[in-house]
Amino acid sequence: MHGTDGSARAGELYTAHGTIPTPIFMPVGTQGTVKALCPEDLTQLGARIILGNTYHLYLRPGDEMIARRGGLHRFMGWDRPILTDSGGFQVFSLSGLRKLTEDGVAFSSHIDGSKHLFTPEKVVSIQRNLGSDIMMVLDECVPYGADYDYTKKSLGLTTRWAARCRAAYPQGSGTQLMFGIGQGGFFKDLRQESIRQLLDIPFDGYALGGLSVGETKPEMMDILYHSAPLLPGEKPRYLMGVGTPLDIVRGIDAGIDMFDCVLPSRNARNGTLFTSHGKVNIKRAEYTEDDATLDPQCTCYTCRNFSRAYLRHLYQAKELLSYRLNTIHNLAYFLRVVTDARQAILDGTFQSFKARFEAVYDT
Amino acid sequence: MHGTDGSARAGELYTAHGTIPTPIFMPVGTQGTVKALCPEDLTQLGARIILGNTYHLYLRPGDEMIARRGGLHRFMGWDRPILTDSGGFQVFSLSGLRKLTEDGVAFSSHIDGSKHLFTPEKVVSIQRNLGSDIMMVLDECVPYGADYDYTKKSLGLTTRWAARCRAAYPQGSGTQLMFGIGQGGFFKDLRQESIRQLLDIPFDGYALGGLSVGETKPEMMDILYHSAPLLPGEKPRYLMGVGTPLDIVRGIDAGIDMFDCVLPSRNARNGTLFTSHGKVNIKRAEYTEDDATLDPQCTCYTCRNFSRAYLRHLYQAKELLSYRLNTIHNLAYFLRVVTDARQAILDGTFQSFKARFEAVYDT
Repeated sequence: MHGTDGSARAGELYTAHGTIPTPIFMPVGTQGTVKALCPEDLTQLGARIILGNTYHLYLRPGDEMIARRGGLHRFMGWDRPILTDSGGFQVFSLSGLRKLTEDGVAFSSHIDGSKHLFTPEKVVSIQRNLGSDIMMVLDECVPYGADYDYTKKSLGLTTRWAARCRAAYPQGSGTQLMFGIGQGGFFKDLRQESIRQLLDIPFDGYALGGLSVGETKPEMMDILYHSAPLLPGEKPRYLMGVGTPLDIVRGIDAGIDMFDCVLPSRNARNGTLFTSHGKVNIKRAEYTEDDATLDPQCTCYTCRNFSRAYLRHLYQAKELLSYRLNTIHNLAYFLRVVTDARQAILDGTFQSFKARFEAVYDT
Repeated sequence: MHGTDGSARAGELYTAHGTIPTPIFMPVGTQGTVKALCPEDLTQLGARIILGNTYHLYLRPGDEMIARRGGLHRFMGWDRPILTDSGGFQVFSLSGLRKLTEDGVAFSSHIDGSKHLFTPEKVVSIQRNLGSDIMMVLDECVPYGADYDYTKKSLGLTTRWAARCRAAYPQGSGTQLMFGIGQGGFFKDLRQESIRQLLDIPFDGYALGGLSVGETKPEMMDILYHSAPLLPGEKPRYLMGVGTPLDIVRGIDAGIDMFDCVLPSRNARNGTLFTSHGKVNIKRAEYTEDDATLDPQCTCYTCRNFSRAYLRHLYQAKELLSYRLNTIHNLAYFLRVVTDARQAILDGTFQSFKARFEAVYDT
């Protein structure tokens, strides 16, 4: 740990493809590409690690095919670290007919309806084929609104699956790291219980799953601030699938080190851009003749070269360049949030840094 | 003129935004962007001049709006030369209900059905607002199959419109160049007559229009080789909207200096890629596990970094990066064709250069 400011932590994460400063934001590269960007763009943006989706890559082009290409890094031309999720979340959110048993989760592909089974051992095998730097265990992401009994039963299954994942790839058996995932829904004692059970298994890091699934912000923050301190302090802590710039700053405040979210890239494609003055919906008529830079405090390629008027035109004309320039900017913004947060922690000014975000964003 | 080899010419074209070596290929930037690429990409590809479409930019975002932004160069962040067409071709190919009179052509927008009128004076005014380096005159692109009488009558109108365009912007009245366009369909005497009439008007360059409109290759080549030598030798000669790599090489052989075509970028988005060994349809199953570079003789970003297997995966997954990487490669290929052709002309080896293309491509 390089420094702390309250619960906020500035550290480093060591992986087979290099050391990553934390806190860190991981752009999402669902299908072997961060949508609209090439690896050179990501490097220029300062991305230090990206996320790959096991569910998608398993279905297409297939993890074994990627293994024959030398792994995901080589296949997609990215030589910095990659974290892969377990695929569980996509099975629950994207795939058709699914059936959960002690053994694993059976599902049908959202692409062609074909039948598949993810077991803990299978998702480890897939992630070994992908050759990611950090593997995630298979878990059940409990839907928002699940009751206490269901959630309690589910977290037991998540723990048993976590143990089977670890057994399929014991600590120290290779260069890939493996993180456990705490569940427990929106019940504080179950969150505590889930993490307590996980701590019996030797993982290289610990994540919080099952947040940003439909709950209100106060509910999310309540669980976040309750659970983050329960994760071991000497290991990286990862808040999965979260979130807005303010969510991330609050996550850092709660002691989280790692974040991923499709929000910056997906919103970019929908024309919603994050700036130091808040969100800009670039399709709005008010930007038609706006010659200003999107965000005067941003130094990304988009802000250095183009006006809001041009970005609006590209969006209105549905030009491919719109997706690219907007994605570049939003990812630059999210990456700067965590970089600036790290500096604020080291400077001991994190609380005023956080207050700035609370002044700009209300969610 | 730096050199000739038979009728093929290696020269230079002087514009307000710099000097261009010829022969040259102009990537098409329809709506203020070469689809999927940013200006930095084009510069890295070695593009020296791009084409902007008057019809599209007039309708959206509007030429007056672009003028208020300081012109098209500044609006889109491109500081090298731009040629704009007159919009006539798109009126005939894209717009709805149109009516041709001596005055001009009335049409309805393909975007919202609104009514518009392009006169020679209007398209010059639009192109002045856009601030292109080279303006094209309004012409009627006679459809393939038009009979002799219609074509003869039409070329007279095209000449009168050309004279009105020139009168609206007399030679030397500004830094923008203006090119005339010869028509005449597929009748050699009418091609000759059209060019003869145009030569009475002082233009900075001369183009052949109305080719690649549905005719067979032999028909196109017959008219091309007949007409190109009729264009004045001391001025740039431009073959509009053509064509395949072999078309371009043959155009150069006929004495043409400038080319534009949507083919490389449109085909890129459809997965058809041009290589030194011919066309590659990247969606074919045979490339699923092909670790080779798309074109081993190419040094573009795509070929330096990615395999055919990865390009096929991106195409199959409909990833935005597919459009970008494919476009980069195809434009690199087309730009190399003209660069290599120029060198071959200077080396006096153009005929063997041309023979190589005839061996690889049959059309």
